[in-house]
Amino acid sequence: MNRYSLNQATTKYWPLEDVVAASSKAELSWIGLWREPVQEYGVERAAKLVADAGLQVSSLCRGGFFTATDEAERQAKLDDNRRAIDEAATLGTEVLVLVSGGLPAGSRDLDGARSMVRDGLAELAPYAGERGVRLAIEALHPMFCSDRCVVSSLGGALDLAEQFPAEQVGVIVDAYHLWWDADVYRQIQRAGDRICSYQVSDWVVPLPADTLLGRGLMGDGSIELRRLREACDAAGYTGPVEVEIFNQDLWDAPGQHVFDLALARYREHVA
Amino acid sequence: MNRYSLNQATTKYWPLEDVVAASSKAELSWIGLWREPVQEYGVERAAKLVADAGLQVSSLCRGGFFTATDEAERQAKLDDNRRAIDEAATLGTEVLVLVSGGLPAGSRDLDGARSMVRDGLAELAPYAGERGVRLAIEALHPMFCSDRCVVSSLGGALDLAEQFPAEQVGVIVDAYHLWWDADVYRQIQRAGDRICSYQVSDWVVPLPADTLLGRGLMGDGSIELRRLREACDAAGYTGPVEVEIFNQDLWDAPGQHVFDLALARYREHVA
Repeated sequence: MNRYSLNQATTKYWPLEDVVAASSKAELSWIGLWREPVQEYGVERAAKLVADAGLQVSSLCRGGFFTATDEAERQAKLDDNRRAIDEAATLGTEVLVLVSGGLPAGSRDLDGARSMVRDGLAELAPYAGERGVRLAIEALHPMFCSDRCVVSSLGGALDLAEQFPAEQVGVIVDAYHLWWDADVYRQIQRAGDRICSYQVSDWVVPLPADTLLGRGLMGDGSIELRRLREACDAAGYTGPVEVEIFNQDLWDAPGQHVFDLALARYREHVA
Repeated sequence: MNRYSLNQATTKYWPLEDVVAASSKAELSWIGLWREPVQEYGVERAAKLVADAGLQVSSLCRGGFFTATDEAERQAKLDDNRRAIDEAATLGTEVLVLVSGGLPAGSRDLDGARSMVRDGLAELAPYAGERGVRLAIEALHPMFCSDRCVVSSLGGALDLAEQFPAEQVGVIVDAYHLWWDADVYRQIQRAGDRICSYQVSDWVVPLPADTLLGRGLMGDGSIELRRLREACDAAGYTGPVEVEIFNQDLWDAPGQHVFDLALARYREHVA
């Protein structure tokens, strides 16, 4: 279980101290953190809490959202991303997860939006590299292309990442977003040392009204999670495997129950 | 407007005779038909109705659904596809649209499901070719991968189609399903004379509870519909452009109103 990491978003309403304590008690090595609850707790205080518990931060979610309608908005977003990089450095994690952002309001210019993502990465990559943080581009499922993330496949993420040094920009392999892609195993092989994290949840239909919250527990859906994990391993990835599930039913359940369930499902379907 | 074709599914509750009469009155050349209402009306009777109105059938929807849990189910599906090919031939259309089918119940074997699609095509392609019908593989949006269609990109559709003669197996370019793909323009170029139809609607968020009914009218969403049409043209496609919208609000509106609206939006955003 030395690769297992629970992203705290999976137990969204559970206090940071509780999920840290549970991870420590379960003798895990990793935990995945989310910016907002960490900011609320205090970034340096959170860094100390995690270190004192003997844990390392597998990733910080999330920066990005580079697409903008004007220069002021663009600069504000870059500033926020620099803060996210600083936070990641303070937390001692190498991985800042980036979601690209969707089409700017009223726009249909997908190529233009993707150029904005590339330009944002170009501004931030050296800043991140100097702080020992990698910008990890996360392709989201194509159903989020218009409103959240114009990078919709691992190939698309790599096309962006490969324009920068591997120690500055990498990619996330999130099973939920990528599993359907007939090209995904070839792209994982291509990704090689660009892989910053392998994230797991499961694809369950029907989707809920809020499609952001449609992720299922590993084993409840259609994804070959172990096969994808083995493909990441074969590509040279040896880092943590993060469980990241956005699901209202899980959020409403007691934190320790979800913690135990996620760990058991990981053993059964991923490890 | 000589390439415009309204797929009758756009005005689902409008009788076939009415949509044929409206298409004829608007001096269109094409109409897209759906198996169930055509069967209900009578296939030969429908063929005569359409021909007498001076129209040609741009495509018949839909065969496919090749994935099966056992041999009996597989054979039943192949039999139904042979009937669909016969119906297409009777209607005088070259294009039978195929939706592949999702994962078989309880399965996570995506490669296996895609092999079932290939095997189904192999059984049917000569039968179709002898009757002057092309099997047109339609990639559906990846959000339908598990339950409706394991072919999720134009590249994936072409990987299948290219295993067969071009006069027997082609592909559908449906903007709704493919627009998000960073590789789509390259794949359209690759498709060339495999393109059997260009279908249009628009991507609108949020998705409705039934994600099958999320399509918007051209111009209401995020898709560069004209650019995609021009890419199909540049790849050598000269055939009909089909409007195919599944949308409960449109279905509930008067047929002639939807007919007029779709035509106007096509002029504005596609032609």
